[in-house]
Amino acid sequence: MKGSRVSGIADVARLAGVSKSTASRALSGGGYVSEETRKKVTDAATTLGYVASANAAGLATGRTRTIAVIVPRVNRWYFGSMIEGITRALIPAGYDLTLYVAEPASQDRESMYRFFLARKRFDGVLAVALEPDDDDIEKLIGIGKPTLCVGNGLNGIPTIGIDNIAIGRMITQHLITLGHREIAFLGVTPYDSPRARDVADRCIGYEQAMRQAGLEASMRSTPSTLTVTDGYAAAVPLLADMESRPTAIVAACDEIAIGAIIAARRLGVPVPGQLSVVGVDGHDYAEMFGLTTIVQHPEELGELAARTLLSLIDGDTDVPDRLQLPTRLVVRSSTTAPATSGA
Amino acid sequence: MKGSRVSGIADVARLAGVSKSTASRALSGGGYVSEETRKKVTDAATTLGYVASANAAGLATGRTRTIAVIVPRVNRWYFGSMIEGITRALIPAGYDLTLYVAEPASQDRESMYRFFLARKRFDGVLAVALEPDDDDIEKLIGIGKPTLCVGNGLNGIPTIGIDNIAIGRMITQHLITLGHREIAFLGVTPYDSPRARDVADRCIGYEQAMRQAGLEASMRSTPSTLTVTDGYAAAVPLLADMESRPTAIVAACDEIAIGAIIAARRLGVPVPGQLSVVGVDGHDYAEMFGLTTIVQHPEELGELAARTLLSLIDGDTDVPDRLQLPTRLVVRSSTTAPATSGA
Repeated sequence: MKGSRVSGIADVARLAGVSKSTASRALSGGGYVSEETRKKVTDAATTLGYVASANAAGLATGRTRTIAVIVPRVNRWYFGSMIEGITRALIPAGYDLTLYVAEPASQDRESMYRFFLARKRFDGVLAVALEPDDDDIEKLIGIGKPTLCVGNGLNGIPTIGIDNIAIGRMITQHLITLGHREIAFLGVTPYDSPRARDVADRCIGYEQAMRQAGLEASMRSTPSTLTVTDGYAAAVPLLADMESRPTAIVAACDEIAIGAIIAARRLGVPVPGQLSVVGVDGHDYAEMFGLTTIVQHPEELGELAARTLLSLIDGDTDVPDRLQLPTRLVVRSSTTAPATSGA
Repeated sequence: MKGSRVSGIADVARLAGVSKSTASRALSGGGYVSEETRKKVTDAATTLGYVASANAAGLATGRTRTIAVIVPRVNRWYFGSMIEGITRALIPAGYDLTLYVAEPASQDRESMYRFFLARKRFDGVLAVALEPDDDDIEKLIGIGKPTLCVGNGLNGIPTIGIDNIAIGRMITQHLITLGHREIAFLGVTPYDSPRARDVADRCIGYEQAMRQAGLEASMRSTPSTLTVTDGYAAAVPLLADMESRPTAIVAACDEIAIGAIIAARRLGVPVPGQLSVVGVDGHDYAEMFGLTTIVQHPEELGELAARTLLSLIDGDTDVPDRLQLPTRLVVRSSTTAPATSGA
């Protein structure tokens, strides 16, 4: 009630019959407290209308118990899954997640550095899918807080991700082993879109595998952004001409691969009879489309990254510069040997 | 440099040649400052290595310049789009977004109220897609900060959303007008899933339209969660039996509708020749699948909700209890008149 004395943590501890430090731990969500004790303390806090002043607590401890997460987009399967994984690690640790959404090299990215990150209202930063821009590195390091890159990495900042060059090589070799020679890469970044290093690395892997197999002459790549709709739109002209049509497509991600399969069905090109398609991601829709793909787990990647950042904040210096998670090839019905010539 | 005097806002203002209040406005991102002045001030701040102490500023003004956003999921088109829209409104206002991800009635939701929201490290709350649970209302009101519901609303809290009952009626009437009689609703919430009031309301609209047309006897609904994969799995048995197959499907959302179209293609049921399908959302994929649907714009809804909340925080009390956004029916190739009987 207005005018009455404001209850402090000591009052809560007294009513709950626990020490002040236990009451504080129970209310902050940090550190171990039994479920029973936690309930006693929160009931006491509710009874007294006690609310911790987070601002004051922040000034006292120097900790904000907040993590800043930088992502280029939210509304894509990969980023949405990763954010859910991050929150899964932060909730039991009692950490808030502050979300900064900004495309690389955009004006929003600029104001993110200038205003938002400069306020330093967080104990650490998870930078998801950064593009290697010297300016970004300098600004991130300049913040002076523990920072971890997820997906793409920057030299000088620890990074958790996957080996995209090896992945591009592996899926291309899968098609070559099946007997394909006319293999197109679908999904290089269009000139007017923000750079995407993971895609560029997958394309490098494709080119390495093609060269190794002596297929350099039939290498070709088609631009598309990383969505089903753009994959569909890019696949239609690629598949429409029977003469020049490839027998297999390496897609930069599953969304593009699914767009290509939908385009093939529309054009009456049987998959995999006349066209094999392979993707990268392990998207929720992959199984429904029978898509052969490299499975990665962005949700688990986000969870692991958040846990690792929390240990960096706690002063653990045993975090490797570059941590690469394993991935695996799941073969489904979208890939098979090419139809014999003239069929 | 370590050991040197820490620069204050007065130093920044002096170097930039502006008043302290202008320097403060330019650095906080709040209030109008010309681009030229902003640049002078931020350059001066960079030169001096000045960083505002957000914690101290928060104690002084009582404002955290942070919005709390509560969502059940991130990794779905609707929620991802909405979050992107919210950030679009918050960035120019200089507000941080703290994200709380918790399914209704989950343990995470419980700790969200107990610990995270109790810290009150925000000036207002956007509660997205809440389910009408008395407990939630009491807890949200108990926080004592400006709060706005988006999508589903709770009595006693202003809400921005769409009229889901009217939408369910409209899409069902569209099919009835085309001549359909055997119309199934696909996507009622399964018993083991969190409740979803928007879906329940759309189903009420479906039932109203069916009753009005004297089609009560052929009303039927099939459970599915709101994903393409579950829509697909639920549609397969519904479409497999030629005898009992409906001539049209009202899907609870576009993702389910797309799953049903994919299932129909797999089973060799031509859409719309033998099956009309209508959805709700205006999903990015709707056009690619030729889907007739009700278009809503979650990104714009999120942006408008955030702007409205900011005006609530600034003391504007002219916010209506219930603000319903217009939606429109976009007719594409997935709906047509039913095949004449026996065809």
